[in-house]
Amino acid sequence: MNIEEKPEFTVFSLNSNRPLAEKVAKSLNIELGKASIVEHSDGETKITIQESVRGKHVFLIQSTTGRVNENIMETLIMMDALKRASALTINIVLPYYAYARQDRKAQPREPITAKLVADLLQTAGADRVIALDLHAPQIQGFFDIPVDHLSATSLLAEGFLERGIGGEGTVVVAPNHSGVSRGRKLAEVLKVPLAIVDKRTKATKIPERLNVIGDVAGKTCILFDDLVDTGTTVAIAALALKEKGAKEIYVAATHAVFSKGATELLESSVIEKIIVTDSIYLPEEKQIDKVIQVSVADLLAYAINCVYEEKSLHQDSE
Amino acid sequence: MNIEEKPEFTVFSLNSNRPLAEKVAKSLNIELGKASIVEHSDGETKITIQESVRGKHVFLIQSTTGRVNENIMETLIMMDALKRASALTINIVLPYYAYARQDRKAQPREPITAKLVADLLQTAGADRVIALDLHAPQIQGFFDIPVDHLSATSLLAEGFLERGIGGEGTVVVAPNHSGVSRGRKLAEVLKVPLAIVDKRTKATKIPERLNVIGDVAGKTCILFDDLVDTGTTVAIAALALKEKGAKEIYVAATHAVFSKGATELLESSVIEKIIVTDSIYLPEEKQIDKVIQVSVADLLAYAINCVYEEKSLHQDSE
Amino acid sequence: MNIEEKPEFTVFSLNSNRPLAEKVAKSLNIELGKASIVEHSDGETKITIQESVRGKHVFLIQSTTGRVNENIMETLIMMDALKRASALTINIVLPYYAYARQDRKAQPREPITAKLVADLLQTAGADRVIALDLHAPQIQGFFDIPVDHLSATSLLAEGFLERGIGGEGTVVVAPNHSGVSRGRKLAEVLKVPLAIVDKRTKATKIPERLNVIGDVAGKTCILFDDLVDTGTTVAIAALALKEKGAKEIYVAATHAVFSKGATELLESSVIEKIIVTDSIYLPEEKQIDKVIQVSVADLLAYAINCVYEEKSLHQDSE
Amino acid sequence: MNIEEKPEFTVFSLNSNRPLAEKVAKSLNIELGKASIVEHSDGETKITIQESVRGKHVFLIQSTTGRVNENIMETLIMMDALKRASALTINIVLPYYAYARQDRKAQPREPITAKLVADLLQTAGADRVIALDLHAPQIQGFFDIPVDHLSATSLLAEGFLERGIGGEGTVVVAPNHSGVSRGRKLAEVLKVPLAIVDKRTKATKIPERLNVIGDVAGKTCILFDDLVDTGTTVAIAALALKEKGAKEIYVAATHAVFSKGATELLESSVIEKIIVTDSIYLPEEKQIDKVIQVSVADLLAYAINCVYEEKSLHQDSE
Amino acid sequence: MNIEEKPEFTVFSLNSNRPLAEKVAKSLNIELGKASIVEHSDGETKITIQESVRGKHVFLIQSTTGRVNENIMETLIMMDALKRASALTINIVLPYYAYARQDRKAQPREPITAKLVADLLQTAGADRVIALDLHAPQIQGFFDIPVDHLSATSLLAEGFLERGIGGEGTVVVAPNHSGVSRGRKLAEVLKVPLAIVDKRTKATKIPERLNVIGDVAGKTCILFDDLVDTGTTVAIAALALKEKGAKEIYVAATHAVFSKGATELLESSVIEKIIVTDSIYLPEEKQIDKVIQVSVADLLAYAINCVYEEKSLHQDSE
Amino acid sequence: MNIEEKPEFTVFSLNSNRPLAEKVAKSLNIELGKASIVEHSDGETKITIQESVRGKHVFLIQSTTGRVNENIMETLIMMDALKRASALTINIVLPYYAYARQDRKAQPREPITAKLVADLLQTAGADRVIALDLHAPQIQGFFDIPVDHLSATSLLAEGFLERGIGGEGTVVVAPNHSGVSRGRKLAEVLKVPLAIVDKRTKATKIPERLNVIGDVAGKTCILFDDLVDTGTTVAIAALALKEKGAKEIYVAATHAVFSKGATELLESSVIEKIIVTDSIYLPEEKQIDKVIQVSVADLLAYAINCVYEEKSLHQDSE
Repeated sequence: MNIEEKPEFTVFSLNSNRPLAEKVAKSLNIELGKASIVEHSDGETKITIQESVRGKHVFLIQSTTGRVNENIMETLIMMDALKRASALTINIVLPYYAYARQDRKAQPREPITAKLVADLLQTAGADRVIALDLHAPQIQGFFDIPVDHLSATSLLAEGFLERGIGGEGTVVVAPNHSGVSRGRKLAEVLKVPLAIVDKRTKATKIPERLNVIGDVAGKTCILFDDLVDTGTTVAIAALALKEKGAKEIYVAATHAVFSKGATELLESSVIEKIIVTDSIYLPEEKQIDKVIQVSVADLLAYAINCVYEEKSLHQDSE
Repeated sequence: MNIEEKPEFTVFSLNSNRPLAEKVAKSLNIELGKASIVEHSDGETKITIQESVRGKHVFLIQSTTGRVNENIMETLIMMDALKRASALTINIVLPYYAYARQDRKAQPREPITAKLVADLLQTAGADRVIALDLHAPQIQGFFDIPVDHLSATSLLAEGFLERGIGGEGTVVVAPNHSGVSRGRKLAEVLKVPLAIVDKRTKATKIPERLNVIGDVAGKTCILFDDLVDTGTTVAIAALALKEKGAKEIYVAATHAVFSKGATELLESSVIEKIIVTDSIYLPEEKQIDKVIQVSVADLLAYAINCVYEEKSLHQDSE
Repeated sequence: MNIEEKPEFTVFSLNSNRPLAEKVAKSLNIELGKASIVEHSDGETKITIQESVRGKHVFLIQSTTGRVNENIMETLIMMDALKRASALTINIVLPYYAYARQDRKAQPREPITAKLVADLLQTAGADRVIALDLHAPQIQGFFDIPVDHLSATSLLAEGFLERGIGGEGTVVVAPNHSGVSRGRKLAEVLKVPLAIVDKRTKATKIPERLNVIGDVAGKTCILFDDLVDTGTTVAIAALALKEKGAKEIYVAATHAVFSKGATELLESSVIEKIIVTDSIYLPEEKQIDKVIQVSVADLLAYAINCVYEEKSLHQDSE
Repeated sequence: MNIEEKPEFTVFSLNSNRPLAEKVAKSLNIELGKASIVEHSDGETKITIQESVRGKHVFLIQSTTGRVNENIMETLIMMDALKRASALTINIVLPYYAYARQDRKAQPREPITAKLVADLLQTAGADRVIALDLHAPQIQGFFDIPVDHLSATSLLAEGFLERGIGGEGTVVVAPNHSGVSRGRKLAEVLKVPLAIVDKRTKATKIPERLNVIGDVAGKTCILFDDLVDTGTTVAIAALALKEKGAKEIYVAATHAVFSKGATELLESSVIEKIIVTDSIYLPEEKQIDKVIQVSVADLLAYAINCVYEEKSLHQDSE
Repeated sequence: MNIEEKPEFTVFSLNSNRPLAEKVAKSLNIELGKASIVEHSDGETKITIQESVRGKHVFLIQSTTGRVNENIMETLIMMDALKRASALTINIVLPYYAYARQDRKAQPREPITAKLVADLLQTAGADRVIALDLHAPQIQGFFDIPVDHLSATSLLAEGFLERGIGGEGTVVVAPNHSGVSRGRKLAEVLKVPLAIVDKRTKATKIPERLNVIGDVAGKTCILFDDLVDTGTTVAIAALALKEKGAKEIYVAATHAVFSKGATELLESSVIEKIIVTDSIYLPEEKQIDKVIQVSVADLLAYAINCVYEEKSLHQDSE
Repeated sequence: MNIEEKPEFTVFSLNSNRPLAEKVAKSLNIELGKASIVEHSDGETKITIQESVRGKHVFLIQSTTGRVNENIMETLIMMDALKRASALTINIVLPYYAYARQDRKAQPREPITAKLVADLLQTAGADRVIALDLHAPQIQGFFDIPVDHLSATSLLAEGFLERGIGGEGTVVVAPNHSGVSRGRKLAEVLKVPLAIVDKRTKATKIPERLNVIGDVAGKTCILFDDLVDTGTTVAIAALALKEKGAKEIYVAATHAVFSKGATELLESSVIEKIIVTDSIYLPEEKQIDKVIQVSVADLLAYAINCVYEEKSLHQDSE
């Protein structure tokens, strides 16, 4: 009898967030796959995979942040190499999914870039996507391949509870209309009420433009969003909460995009602490005191292991 | 010189909402295309198109409601017939897009049926979709073909204003978390504030489960949603509003799904009037006094004409 | 050495013919997979799979009969759920393939719905089809995936022989022109001659319209077709045979569609007995005395097992 | 105003049946397009199109006969050249569709080559197929593009009537089971009865193997089939008819495949005359006295014109 | 009669080489289309098209150079927006095609990025590509859509002749093995002989590694390549030519990639002049005295016009 | 525990080069799979696979030479049969890839047949291609599936060295411009210099048209190409080398196409010996004394084994 060995799996890291990939590998007790991914002087990306992947399940970790387009192209080129090198399956692990906010035509003649990215990944050969707190859960439907959608909400909630925040007298606040469902979830985990910062886009006077719906006076507020980009949304929301008598204000978000000026703005804001994950790599200068990072490495490692072992992910929900 | 005549266009109606299709045709000043669409005694749908469609732009109007699966299959079979009969383009007009609420995996091992429907329509040969107030605007991204996404918000707002409702002392109320963005829009059109009914899914006691965030006491409330299905959501929300001292309560929604028991529930509720469109056909027994219908026929006719004349739809936004 | 376990297989039943699926499961000595398939009050189908299918071979049994379009959509939605839930392969078992008679354009501007159904199944993610006595064997070619095409002819022949019918003095009769090849096969299994009922579609007078080609006087006739729908074809054919002196008349068919009025017509006809299979579920009121059912459960179970064990199906013919 | 000229159309002929293509061009009052299609000494086919086809509707006439595989590849290569040369649409005119008899798996592990050919044509860029008397009408469904399916039955019937054959005392005979539907049609056109030659494939003795069902004694018989290949089927059927007392025997068929030995066999047979079309080119040595050819050139020209002018083909049926 | 107006065309420029796009527009006597293409602080590209493109032929000019991956993604996102905004056709004009040198697996487990880019462009909706001097002509075959492949060889040859270079006593030199066919073409245009610089990749000593095949002593040498990247290849080749007694050395190339350090290297080299085109935008600091630019704007404008007018491009070769 | 057995593999040979396939099978120590591949009298190819391939890895060996189009169609039909017979993977082994020279549009309105063939193979179901010395390495990029590209350069070099040819005083000569890179490789293996035969396509006088670049006087020349077709290129090149004083001339090529007249031309040429592989079957009359064949059977067997065992092919390069 010719018995088959289980095909192995290899985890490769691309360039955007190697520290996270290293932690995932450590959690899985393996070495990262060897590959050379360099940018030539002419601006092209040159990739060579330095170990055989024939017949293997490959997991590719890449956070599409910072130099977003570079990172996406890097992922696509790596997949082309893997496909032509006879990998058995290609599984893309995207701790942060760029362009997720461009998920519909909000104005005439706009692209739906989040769908384009899904199409490009599938064209280049993806067999599965593992994603974390997608801006809109509908992005799962942009794919024809299985999407395992993880959530860091529990990790963030624990982050607060460990620090003695989030009990009686706390209120979760959605910083805008589109985040209310997300806020509702954290509020339920923490068993606290919900409030909403109501931004009218066409109002003429500032005070009119930023209202708070719900009761926040004397409360500890946790502004909760999927991501913090320039920080303006939460910084202004925090001001509005203060005006309404909030006691102290925290921010929680899965993805610390922290684009230009964000750290300065957060530093100078009335916000006490910002709890985020390491789904996006934070260079040292952005690791300011106010920012607390909790790691999603074990969560991603758990998902990779479930996929490989063909076990159900209990965390498999919206 | 051999001058080309502009290819003609034909509008066909399928079975779900012929009265609306007739109105659209009237608005366009044309006759509906001739086709026989019958259900055989064995349950199969038999379609024959009774006029040539070679080289024509075809618009197919179908509201996928009531016998939802029947209506979807009817659409697909009609498209197969049109494609094989050499139609130049096939444009699907879907006043109501069924399964739009199944737009993500909310629980493990659920389908994303809204994406499946998009895939089926494209497989059968759709070149374009004209849709109205999709449950989630991300559904546009489920398609690789152009989607013209219309909104009935202005029509509904006019419906209120014409009846002297919606001025000072009015508040728009989102009946749940996922509808807050939608509510924000109507609130801006009417220049009134916003409130939210906050439903905690895991709370143990009823009073805890239904809170109102925002100020509604003594106000005229307009509960605004994309659709009214069983009516339970708005009926319960109305009760909560009343408890909080609301003066009178109206409901506005684009799609009057009104499934089993809805009309009875609405009739007996504290709601004054429900303004809906005719995107879904309401049989006479559902046209109760409380329900006011405004027609989207001119809006659809306008969109068909823009597509045919290749003009921009100014209404082209989310 | 990391030895691989053979991926398991699960058989799910959809709603059209659960009794057959139960028999198949019993024959395979397994339990049917757990899934909730319900129709909501708004007409939409809601499916949740209640056990993990990651990495499993899934077989889905559905007879697309009765509420044909419902059943097809149900199958497609279930497949979408299975695909997104990471099933290894999806194998559709279709004891009855609806729309098989719509396999060509018989009139201008007709659809070819049998091909559309094949396309839809493939779009939704089917990896293989197991079918039984397709109306036209060419339907195999509508698929790009493997089709295992089973035949119940031997089972039906045995059904006669067990009851002492089908020996010397018997003639197999094709009830129309398109069924002659099929009739030839049963005639060969039973080693008896063949006759044909000749229906002229454009003749003006009834007697002219229904002729019998071949010798039936004093014979036991077995009218043989792939399906009995309204029963009209066989009932009229039986009358013509009687006129030509046939002794007694039996009917054999794989698929008992029995649409509206069929049982009454068959009951009152000159036909002695109708032998059919359980490829289509017969509710009690249709199980009239004249109808004898033979089960295809063991045949389907055998096919499922061959596919899973990667053995050749000896029954693998036209 | 910038008025658009109607895009022109060009008809190209490939190598299998240039005389027919010339007649079609003459009927359309145009010149055939210029292209060089040569076979190199190494066996490869080299094609260059010698006039611009940018923005034109192109019709490509090829009968896939004789050197069947050569002819198919020639068609595919020509299409690749047309596609890359920016033809507006590519319409394949196939007077004879090779491999049409391989339209299902009759035995295990056979290909369905008729479907493969359809897939190849679509891969290479076909936008439409114009076909003539396909062996099985289901082949239409092998395509996802429009198929205009023409029939030569009327032309053949006229061929008989012009020669004083086909009136009272005539019977149309299907030479085997699978041709009965086809025979029924000619019988209806000629308003005469039908008979069938019944070939049992597994019988042991010759007389048993070839029976005639229906009345042919003293009759003029027209054996009717879609094609005559080796001639064996009709020659043997003719013998059986003679044995049953047939007066004289004619053969009608759309496609004169006449493969090796056919003309000799037909010459020496009891058949009076064979009426065929020029869908397949007959070299002089095969144009024996017994063979009468009627041309399908006007029929094909009519179809090309209807497609170009976007008019309905009234001949558009099964 | 309802006469059709010819659909208009619009030319859009993306960000990599606006000056060239402006010249093309001027040559066509039109204004460039209006679109906003900006990079957000988070690294994402945001595109909005500011005029209707419904039913129009769109030409998109982008040189994929410098920030190569940015430029490719920008192109793909723009195409997604155009497709969803109902453009009739999308024609990509790529004066420089990045990754063209990655056109095969030169080492195990490398990607074929040039093919990946072709696939991505087609996924995003390209209907046609207009390219200029592709590194390998086989890249045309990476596409399933028409590719109009232009050559600047004549423009470059004219550039020399206008400056009194390229007559008697000149020799065209291919700087490596893969460029010999290209060199042969320029040599034929100029009617001069050819030589080759022969680089042995595995030789151990430098003198062995760079040989010149052919006669260059006392000759004016034109090193000819499709592109100049770092300049090392031509600088070293020039040295080798000098050693073999070349009189003076010129360089001609279509694409001035000029990546880091190239201008310094060329400045200090023994090369007299470098003639290149403006297919790639040269910032002022790279426009050194030695570099002469000839414009391809008229050539691209000519191609766009031919495509729009559906005329043959006489320059359509190699 | 239900342990899985490793799926088996089967090697089938088609008709073009059975002797090579037999040698490959012998090298792998297996029997070739059983299949009937016959040409019917009507020119169609009929294939039946005579053993089960369910769940097996299948390797299909076919050299697309001689009756090129026949061989390609044979391959496609066999793949259709394999796919429908549930083969696990289909791996095409193409020792010679026909139409490889038609890899770009060299003239307007030519096809890119090498890409068409790649598309056809993928349409029919290929999962992998194993190829040998493709005319252009870019053909790898015509596929979206893995291509394992083998080279016979080392085998041919050994062929010379074993016969005492190829040492000091030898020069490798590229017979035209497009073969210089290939020549460079053999030159490096043998550690000898390189020369090039320079053919000017538009020169008017013969002596002008064929020049030799590089030093060949008194040398042993090895003309090296990927294939020898009519032999004209190498025969004329040999004459030019003789004129330049070459001592003796050998030819090496992977593929012995040897089309009409080639053997006569080579026999009468000044060439001493031609070393080729058995990638193409040479009938006895073409096995002239001057021709030496080295077998690629072990190389192909090695590649098949690596693929099956999922090991890296060290020979995996361009």
